[in-house]
Amino acid sequence: MCESWAMRYSVQVEVRLRPGIADPQGATIERSLPHLGFDGVSEVRVGKMIRFVIDAADEAAAAAEAEDMCRRFLTNPVIEDSEVTVSVLEGAPA
Amino acid sequence: MCESWAMRYSVQVEVRLRPGIADPQGATIERSLPHLGFDGVSEVRVGKMIRFVIDAADEAAAAAEAEDMCRRFLTNPVIEDSEVTVSVLEGAPA
Repeated sequence: MCESWAMRYSVQVEVRLRPGIADPQGATIERSLPHLGFDGVSEVRVGKMIRFVIDAADEAAAAAEAEDMCRRFLTNPVIEDSEVTVSVLEGAPA
Repeated sequence: MCESWAMRYSVQVEVRLRPGIADPQGATIERSLPHLGFDGVSEVRVGKMIRFVIDAADEAAAAAEAEDMCRRFLTNPVIEDSEVTVSVLEGAPA
């Protein structure tokens, strides 16, 4: 029988704190910078970048699964936004 | 006198574990996925995405300062790689 997962997709999920949500990690970096000789840096925000490979029938299916993963457990939607980017990794004949 | 920092640049620094370095956070996500109904996901790696705004004379100066920040304290070069992306945020007359 044919394997329906014909393609492999590389997925990047960037998880960012929503605007207005306090970012203590970013604030700590920002406060340290002038002491280390780095001037002119502001608005430091620290997020996560999750990368993985997904086997799916097409790019839309891969994106849908990744978006669902974000909603279900990769992010906390109360305080975080996420951005999913999908690209073809390699093709395999269906 | 003229302010020499004429431009504001938006900087993204993606910090990734080097290939071959164990990623327990990614491994935990990957192990949990089948139990949550997500199949076909592999090679999960969790990194950081640090975003900030930098005032600099030009894009090259902004990129150089960001690269220097990476080397000095945003990353641990023994186990992490970083990728700096700089884009113009807004212009102000010099």
